[in-house]
Amino acid sequence: MKKIINEPAAFVDEFVEGILLAHPDLLKTPGDDLRVMVRADAPVAGKVGIVTGGGSGHLPLFKGYVGHGLLDGVAIGNVFSSPSSSQVLEATKAVDGSAGVLYLYGNYGGDVFNFDLATDMAELEGIKTRTVLGRDDVASQPKERAADRRGVAGIMFAFKAAGAAAERGDSLDQVAAVAEDIIDHTATMGVGLRPTILPTTGKPSFDLSEDEMEVGIGIHGEPGFHRGELETADNIAKTLTDRLVADLSLTSGGRVAVLVNGMGATPLEELYVLFRRVHQALTEKGITVEKNYVGEYATSLEMAGASISLLALNDDRLALLNAPAQSPFFKEG
Amino acid sequence: MKKIINEPAAFVDEFVEGILLAHPDLLKTPGDDLRVMVRADAPVAGKVGIVTGGGSGHLPLFKGYVGHGLLDGVAIGNVFSSPSSSQVLEATKAVDGSAGVLYLYGNYGGDVFNFDLATDMAELEGIKTRTVLGRDDVASQPKERAADRRGVAGIMFAFKAAGAAAERGDSLDQVAAVAEDIIDHTATMGVGLRPTILPTTGKPSFDLSEDEMEVGIGIHGEPGFHRGELETADNIAKTLTDRLVADLSLTSGGRVAVLVNGMGATPLEELYVLFRRVHQALTEKGITVEKNYVGEYATSLEMAGASISLLALNDDRLALLNAPAQSPFFKEG
Repeated sequence: MKKIINEPAAFVDEFVEGILLAHPDLLKTPGDDLRVMVRADAPVAGKVGIVTGGGSGHLPLFKGYVGHGLLDGVAIGNVFSSPSSSQVLEATKAVDGSAGVLYLYGNYGGDVFNFDLATDMAELEGIKTRTVLGRDDVASQPKERAADRRGVAGIMFAFKAAGAAAERGDSLDQVAAVAEDIIDHTATMGVGLRPTILPTTGKPSFDLSEDEMEVGIGIHGEPGFHRGELETADNIAKTLTDRLVADLSLTSGGRVAVLVNGMGATPLEELYVLFRRVHQALTEKGITVEKNYVGEYATSLEMAGASISLLALNDDRLALLNAPAQSPFFKEG
Repeated sequence: MKKIINEPAAFVDEFVEGILLAHPDLLKTPGDDLRVMVRADAPVAGKVGIVTGGGSGHLPLFKGYVGHGLLDGVAIGNVFSSPSSSQVLEATKAVDGSAGVLYLYGNYGGDVFNFDLATDMAELEGIKTRTVLGRDDVASQPKERAADRRGVAGIMFAFKAAGAAAERGDSLDQVAAVAEDIIDHTATMGVGLRPTILPTTGKPSFDLSEDEMEVGIGIHGEPGFHRGELETADNIAKTLTDRLVADLSLTSGGRVAVLVNGMGATPLEELYVLFRRVHQALTEKGITVEKNYVGEYATSLEMAGASISLLALNDDRLALLNAPAQSPFFKEG
């Protein structure tokens, strides 16, 4: 297991310490637990706070999106493990500016359990919360069961748009509605080539032979819908794009934002090879790419693979994506 | 060889096509050859142009740094291979705003040969050029032979500072002096864990057994000065930091910018574990970290490993780093 780490059990606490040392202008920790971080100027009076969280190992998810025009706070757990409800509550209290707090995170059982507990605890503290779940992974459930889908890289669109809505002064209900609207119009599908090795166990997150890929794989190695011989970048891009276009019922004249996301070990060059074919495939269908993101936006440590996300755009959604934002890993405008 | 590509021979042309499709607002190609790109508003009349280049496979080097307040043009070759002199000339002519052009690139034989040829060709076209070479890899030659060192990730500091100097209207001699000054005060050292596989040959860029690391490795797999058992992140960070501090003759009261660079497959979490210890080690020596960059700034496809760069700061250098800039992969201010 080749990793640049110290004691595996100290991995999370050490990288979060590094993040705080690197970004004291943007982030702070409200207490002693560095796994809970909030934007440096939190709480912002009168502004809806947005809190996210989940397992570690997905940088720039989640801490990378805390900042101006984005998220207000985050609580993370061990690698691929949920934060505790008390950590979520700590983030909630630290970002509460008396306008309520939106919980915006991916649809995973452990996270839902702990954020729901935190909701009850926050209510006792007099803090109103709303919850919106990222559920953009179209491979995880068919469209009829879209509410049960897992959340993956496409949640980044919801972070950006909801963060912009909160920054301009929207109410809690309005910010939640923006997040719901974005998630309803976002679809993601990934392909895995090589697993990550979990630092504490030394075990791979999934198994795959040397000439195979898995289409529809989840970010923790959850099984996809097709395992087979590694195909060309163009075939992968076309397959995924066609699935996403169908899922979102996009037709000629449609407008989209595209995210080509690397899962950790995939070279940026390969992501641009994919983006090239995604762009071609969309153009062939009469769909216009009005915004794009190519890079690592949600990873699984050193997993090799990529995902493609589409967000169906209208003027409102595009304006929210284009609003200024600044966090450790994200700048716009 | 698990890569998300099509025909290996088409790899470079396909990823540069993807880059141009993704960033039409920032980049354009002056002719038919997409391996030559310049900023979208080039040439900028009266401004010194800065042209870089080198082998492909190092994104965000080199195309990622073309933009406002950064570089004006770039020419790239095949993976790990120099661009041709005619490609460099094409970039030169496209960015020439009648104030001269600075060639700023890493010290590798093939690149030097072709940029020097381009210098002669540019002179025939009436374009004045100056050349400054990145040579920050302290493991590649001892200090007495610093002029022969290879250029690695630390050239990013020179891109940023020289780009800011050109943008504010400095003359060609002044911009060249800024680049020289930055390079004279930059030192980098890397550690390699796993090689990249070259797309066209299918061969690894170097060999290393499953429990080994190589300290001082070059970005193309050039041998370092120590191969041994993989050490802890803290030991690696301390070893590299001590070497860099000694090389730059930094002492208590010194000020630095730190770059912790991932070479392609190394998780961002591991880079922050390294940064944490680099920051501690510098603080213990009384040296202040005034600016930091943690992420992938110069890679070698999917090579696993990291490098640490230090730039000794003064007020002028820090101001140039902090000046606004925007390119596909870099934003400041």
